[in-house]
Amino acid sequence: MSEQPAASYPVDDTNRIKRRHQRAHYDHATVHALLDSAALCHVSYVIDGQPYCTPTLYWREGTTLYWHGSSASRMLRNLSEGQPACLTVTQLDSLVLARSAFHHSADYRSVMAFGHAKLIEDEPEKSRALTMMVDRLFPGRTATLRPTTEQELKATAVVSMEIEKASAKVRAAGVIDDDEDYALAIYAERIPVRTVIGAPEPDSRLLPGLARPATLSGFNAGRRLDEVLTEAYAMSYPAG
Amino acid sequence: MSEQPAASYPVDDTNRIKRRHQRAHYDHATVHALLDSAALCHVSYVIDGQPYCTPTLYWREGTTLYWHGSSASRMLRNLSEGQPACLTVTQLDSLVLARSAFHHSADYRSVMAFGHAKLIEDEPEKSRALTMMVDRLFPGRTATLRPTTEQELKATAVVSMEIEKASAKVRAAGVIDDDEDYALAIYAERIPVRTVIGAPEPDSRLLPGLARPATLSGFNAGRRLDEVLTEAYAMSYPAG
Repeated sequence: MSEQPAASYPVDDTNRIKRRHQRAHYDHATVHALLDSAALCHVSYVIDGQPYCTPTLYWREGTTLYWHGSSASRMLRNLSEGQPACLTVTQLDSLVLARSAFHHSADYRSVMAFGHAKLIEDEPEKSRALTMMVDRLFPGRTATLRPTTEQELKATAVVSMEIEKASAKVRAAGVIDDDEDYALAIYAERIPVRTVIGAPEPDSRLLPGLARPATLSGFNAGRRLDEVLTEAYAMSYPAG
Repeated sequence: MSEQPAASYPVDDTNRIKRRHQRAHYDHATVHALLDSAALCHVSYVIDGQPYCTPTLYWREGTTLYWHGSSASRMLRNLSEGQPACLTVTQLDSLVLARSAFHHSADYRSVMAFGHAKLIEDEPEKSRALTMMVDRLFPGRTATLRPTTEQELKATAVVSMEIEKASAKVRAAGVIDDDEDYALAIYAERIPVRTVIGAPEPDSRLLPGLARPATLSGFNAGRRLDEVLTEAYAMSYPAG
């Protein structure tokens, strides 16, 4: 029996990585794993020829990306009619000090996802999406919250974007110098960088006796955020 | 004697923060402090109507931003003629779990800077910019390196962008719930997030006896990256 071919995003001039193509990945597994390891993205879109780059929280379901904002926001009003957008997620993993300025670099993992962003108009669909926005980060949490009001639902806009094309780019190489430069008396090193969770701060106005839910046990001081978010994602979307 | 008025970026429809305007800042001091606390940005630009959102290293001099890349890169070729661009820097500071889905949030600090990106054609200007690219992160390091070759200089493109407009947005509020929701038996907390430096990894091929330069002493395990980069910036640009 032959193996199932791995699903990949189509590649064209928009998402093809032309430089250092050995760092490029287009398969769903790599692209989705990176998307599921973060909560913050940057979205690019155009209004009257002016590009905007907006940071926002996002989440993924299958090959669809979601983000949200105020119904009044400029970004979301502009995207309501299916505007081209690019959603990018980047994790910085190190700063790299080489023996030449030219080879100074950084280790990183990034995904660029391209598609057309559309406002979700259907109320049940929007309501379900907002549930997943919270539960993707904190599995099962929505069921424990004060329910969302009609007014809150109206005040919130949710955008969905089917990923039409995507590319992941990963550098995990540390110091790479020209062969002849290794003979030089120049110090070189890799400085690792990671985003971690600090000590959780219970709200000062909690009712007495309220314990921290067991579902938050992954969010503990010192843990890497990307690992915790990947675990939370797998709990919320067991099918992947 | 009256105080000198604080310098600020002009505000118009492009950069005005319309929602939660109490989180907005336009003064040079706030905008620049945020820009100088990070190394990674996302740049938005447009090619044939398609927005791109590209992660890259950047640095600031006065009211000018710089970033670099390969002379062959799509982004940099496209920007060579003074294209509109938006450079955004975001620091995620926490995830906020409130008593309603609607008030789930995050603490963050972000800057959006707008301008027209231009390729630096002048070789001495480009060479100086690349020196600052390294020295802004690692003060004085370029003088200790193998000099940059003509070929390397040609292979590198540097873009500069005068900041025409900018806005900073800061949320540092933790949990904020509706008044009546504080009476509910629902757990709420702020989960701090920070980006820190790991244990530096000296290159395995260092010549024997090469010690770590004292100028790198700020880059030590456990320190916050934003604090270390702010210190490094102040050492490289004592005038601010």
